[in-house]
Amino acid sequence: MSNADHLIEKQLNSETIYEGKVITLTVQTVELPNGKQAKREVVLHPGAVTVLAITADDQILLVNQFRKAPNSLLIETPAGKLERGEDPLTSAKRELEEETGYQAAEWKHITSFYTSPGFADELIHCYVATGLTMVEQKLDEDEFLDVLHVTAEAAEQMILDGRIADAKTVALVYWWLRERMREGK
Amino acid sequence: MSNADHLIEKQLNSETIYEGKVITLTVQTVELPNGKQAKREVVLHPGAVTVLAITADDQILLVNQFRKAPNSLLIETPAGKLERGEDPLTSAKRELEEETGYQAAEWKHITSFYTSPGFADELIHCYVATGLTMVEQKLDEDEFLDVLHVTAEAAEQMILDGRIADAKTVALVYWWLRERMREGK
Repeated sequence: MSNADHLIEKQLNSETIYEGKVITLTVQTVELPNGKQAKREVVLHPGAVTVLAITADDQILLVNQFRKAPNSLLIETPAGKLERGEDPLTSAKRELEEETGYQAAEWKHITSFYTSPGFADELIHCYVATGLTMVEQKLDEDEFLDVLHVTAEAAEQMILDGRIADAKTVALVYWWLRERMREGK
Repeated sequence: MSNADHLIEKQLNSETIYEGKVITLTVQTVELPNGKQAKREVVLHPGAVTVLAITADDQILLVNQFRKAPNSLLIETPAGKLERGEDPLTSAKRELEEETGYQAAEWKHITSFYTSPGFADELIHCYVATGLTMVEQKLDEDEFLDVLHVTAEAAEQMILDGRIADAKTVALVYWWLRERMREGK
């Protein structure tokens, strides 16, 4: 018996409500630690990657794109969904090149996190990419975005005044600010 | 004509697939900037709050709880959904007290961000709370979690080794690390 048994929910069944192109909605019945039953609305997602790409002149590449869910333009680190069976690093390299036109010589995994664990299983793998070389932007036919080059100071200000309002981007910008302070920048 | 017209999607209609207790799933038809049509799967969520609560001995309060969507225990900053019409700061105070048993004398809004803008409209309002006083934990009858007290060094290590794997928590911990370095800690 694990010492987490007082926290764990046991799944009793799962009903698929909708299978979409990107997400699947299920409603799951669970048994709570106190023996009672509850329903959980769970969105299944294939997972995603995002990239903090740092240029030779110490700026990061951000993309400004319209997001239908919040119904607004959002400024974010380049990102994309994992394709079926795809290795996250391969996906990160593909997304950076498609969205910004850059390839990177050095890649490092920073961390991976769930974005909305209260209702979705989306896990985002976060990378930092340096040694950038411009090749060619290869947006999907139906993908529309602008690429921005942003300094550390500007990125922090954009978080504090609300122009950057995306969780993964806030996490990666503060990771970068912390790294830069550690390096004495 | 705005200079963002080359990015904006226009909503043509929205079909409600499922209305749950927490989320509503819609499928929306949009017109892309190139005139083509596309479908967007959009999860509607009431929004949420989260709190970086810093104790007098410079530790943060985190909660370890089971999350059915990722199907695992997650260590997170205290958080909760907005109730209908509720002011986010009121919600943040309620969630901190319910989940950890602490009240705070000083509250500051840090930033607000979308967690999964690719498919959901969940917006989380982030606060830092100091001047903590222990009152009494008031968990909902069907809520189960453990409260942890964690130093800055331990929190960073937990992100890097994967024990903290939640986007809002990663963002807030790095915000805190940055603030502490700025203060010379």
